[in-house]
Amino acid sequence: MLRMTQYRMNEFELIKMVTHGAPVSLDGLVCGVGDDCSVVTGHGGRDYLITTDALFEGVHFRPDWISPKTLGRKALAVNISDIAAMGGRPLYYLVTIGVPDKFPVKDIEALFDGMKATASAHRMHIIGGDTCGSKKGLLISITAIGEVEHAKCLYRKGATPGDVVYVTGTFGGSALGLSCLEKGLRGIEMREYIRRHDEPTPRVSTGLWLASSSCVSSMIDVSDGLAGDLGHIAEMSGVGIKVHADAIPLPEGFIRAAASCQKDPRALALTGGEDYELAFTVSKNKEALFEKMLKVVLPTFNHKIAKIGDVIEGKGVGVIDMHGAHLPLVSKGFEHRF
Amino acid sequence: MLRMTQYRMNEFELIKMVTHGAPVSLDGLVCGVGDDCSVVTGHGGRDYLITTDALFEGVHFRPDWISPKTLGRKALAVNISDIAAMGGRPLYYLVTIGVPDKFPVKDIEALFDGMKATASAHRMHIIGGDTCGSKKGLLISITAIGEVEHAKCLYRKGATPGDVVYVTGTFGGSALGLSCLEKGLRGIEMREYIRRHDEPTPRVSTGLWLASSSCVSSMIDVSDGLAGDLGHIAEMSGVGIKVHADAIPLPEGFIRAAASCQKDPRALALTGGEDYELAFTVSKNKEALFEKMLKVVLPTFNHKIAKIGDVIEGKGVGVIDMHGAHLPLVSKGFEHRF
Repeated sequence: MLRMTQYRMNEFELIKMVTHGAPVSLDGLVCGVGDDCSVVTGHGGRDYLITTDALFEGVHFRPDWISPKTLGRKALAVNISDIAAMGGRPLYYLVTIGVPDKFPVKDIEALFDGMKATASAHRMHIIGGDTCGSKKGLLISITAIGEVEHAKCLYRKGATPGDVVYVTGTFGGSALGLSCLEKGLRGIEMREYIRRHDEPTPRVSTGLWLASSSCVSSMIDVSDGLAGDLGHIAEMSGVGIKVHADAIPLPEGFIRAAASCQKDPRALALTGGEDYELAFTVSKNKEALFEKMLKVVLPTFNHKIAKIGDVIEGKGVGVIDMHGAHLPLVSKGFEHRF
Repeated sequence: MLRMTQYRMNEFELIKMVTHGAPVSLDGLVCGVGDDCSVVTGHGGRDYLITTDALFEGVHFRPDWISPKTLGRKALAVNISDIAAMGGRPLYYLVTIGVPDKFPVKDIEALFDGMKATASAHRMHIIGGDTCGSKKGLLISITAIGEVEHAKCLYRKGATPGDVVYVTGTFGGSALGLSCLEKGLRGIEMREYIRRHDEPTPRVSTGLWLASSSCVSSMIDVSDGLAGDLGHIAEMSGVGIKVHADAIPLPEGFIRAAASCQKDPRALALTGGEDYELAFTVSKNKEALFEKMLKVVLPTFNHKIAKIGDVIEGKGVGVIDMHGAHLPLVSKGFEHRF
């Protein structure tokens, strides 16, 4: 994400204002504001997951840095990631686009081709939308709808002291890619990270498996930085989280690439945004079972799963080194400011 | 709505491109793209209605013409109108807003106060959203979710030759109000029309009653102009519609106000946008029953219901005078162009 001008409210304060007094549950509403998706009662024992996420020109993307087709793919993928984070399967989406006056029709087509390619990969279908000329730059706002078995849905709340913290994949790659784009570094060794920034892969099948495992106590997708999003699990569960710095997966190539951009790889991994990996906690008495099942299923995933920390009594997220000493968070994670 | 720069595609062409290949129905999807809302299977014999509609600064509104609070009310009301048009009851909404850098926080609060006031009047609840700084003007994109009894849902399709065409309320007032805003006419006799433009009243209770009456064969809300929206019923039902010009409700005050703005009142009523009234057809063999029931219930509505035309074999919408002569449509209705 591109950083914004400082303003008087950050995104979380604004969301708090907007959703003040919003119900957490109602007849038919299983879960309201405050998780990756809201959840409403569906049919046949399943619930619908509903989420909305928008990409704005000049804020989330620069058209000279990303092709319309890739942008279309990404706009839908970031919404699908929220469904994956609840253990759900994506079904439908609605798209609102604002198109600047001189935006070429072939680029609108490419944008929708990208969206359709991502939709098709997840067997999702468009069910509505609104289109509008925009005097003010391109924007894509998507509402995505998924489904989940009522009893299997995973929330941010649910972590208990003693639970173990796991993550899928690696972290910081997307933030490094953004840094490369900002600095004009397009060398072959940077392409992987630019691709991670431009083409996030929502972890749908992994999320479905985690939901079906009955071992997971809480889950979130990591879009605002690993430390920040683990903080959401901690806050919603009323617990603290201790992250073992050395357990965070930092591939050799990533460490080298970060260094060549004058970036601290650990700081990128903890606070960089837009990784779209999953972070989750496994119930303390199910860790052995989970590890056993994971060994069987992991070869079918195209990513690793790493144990990176523990749920503790208390609050907030702390990072410790191999000797147990607390390490500072270099930055507090990405914040949209208004 | 403010008119846009001419562009290479109109809104309907763009929607066609976007939704090309989209399913009309799937397992769990009762109705896909192509009506006021899409419809997905709910629980307990009810379905969910889902719609999305956005307001863009400089396209749908000018901030010097409408207060943030009124804008918030309107942004949600236009979405609720789509739910009313299917005979549904609004339940939930998700809001994405893009806020310009220097937009005052008190105006964001006022915007949400307006939205909450409309939500509260309809017992709707916010269940999600996304907030973002916008380099490019204010925008509000809303997804609204309602519910309807499965068997009672009213679609644009369903009109049959011989059916009778009805409308709620009056038409053209909102377009006249926009014209007053454009011309800087703010006199006391114009305030009613400016209010109609700024503060649409979605016909939810009327829509619910119409759905429960079992007499209605098709329904739509009139947002793009009466002639244009009746055209959608005609197209989706595979029929023609004959409108009796003299039956269109044109109050005396409206005729005078239109004249003082050098506008043809009938043209405003047929092609002006944003009335957010309901247009519907009553099955030919149920007209007498419908009229009987209507007589009982009408005093509880705060608007009239008028019979304005007939469904015929053929296609398109024609307007005839009292002698049966065809009248031309002065304009083809409002089109967003891109």
